[in-house]
Amino acid sequence: MNDGFATLPKPPYYAVIFSSRRNSQDEEGYGATAERMIELVQRQSGFLGAESTRGADGFGITVACFDSEASILAWRQNAEHTAARERGRSDWYDHFELRIAKIERAYGWDREGRAKRSEE
Amino acid sequence: MNDGFATLPKPPYYAVIFSSRRNSQDEEGYGATAERMIELVQRQSGFLGAESTRGADGFGITVACFDSEASILAWRQNAEHTAARERGRSDWYDHFELRIAKIERAYGWDREGRAKRSEE
Repeated sequence: MNDGFATLPKPPYYAVIFSSRRNSQDEEGYGATAERMIELVQRQSGFLGAESTRGADGFGITVACFDSEASILAWRQNAEHTAARERGRSDWYDHFELRIAKIERAYGWDREGRAKRSEE
Repeated sequence: MNDGFATLPKPPYYAVIFSSRRNSQDEEGYGATAERMIELVQRQSGFLGAESTRGADGFGITVACFDSEASILAWRQNAEHTAARERGRSDWYDHFELRIAKIERAYGWDREGRAKRSEE
């Protein structure tokens, strides 16, 4: 990530949009696992980049991008990731919504002109 | 929004994923316009719901969902929204990335079983 922004190829590509509400449990274990998942997904074939943020109220959104639905499925089947998701349900989240999307177009703007791109 | 989560129909539908980094300028004007845009988009034909969060570092993600690309285009052409986007570039954001996506599948989980749905 670059200042929060992922450097992504030109669309089309796929994204997992993960919205979640954290409870106040186990901040340390959650943080360690979140860091580990970032490390792990970067080794996942077809992973393109991710952006993530969470407000002070515990509501967060992560957008993780992949080259194909097959890569998303492979990441889902990763054993350590599967165990982390189980911890998410047992311990860390009160609610989450996961959406699988095909990114069709993209447009970026940067005050300093570093990343300007046109929409198709 | 319900505790941060949008109540959305079954996919497919379309989403605008807006990642942005706020600078520290004009918190008051930005906040008022952000509230006004939420009010306005809810009157936009085809708008389905939105989720939004921003971390303490100023990096935020908003996912706004619509029934079609035509509705996204109509919202983009809304005059007040167009003026707000211009203020975003002149005053409020240091960088943003906008991605147009087709949401193909969705899965939700809630600790209290309020919103559980199966994937596909």
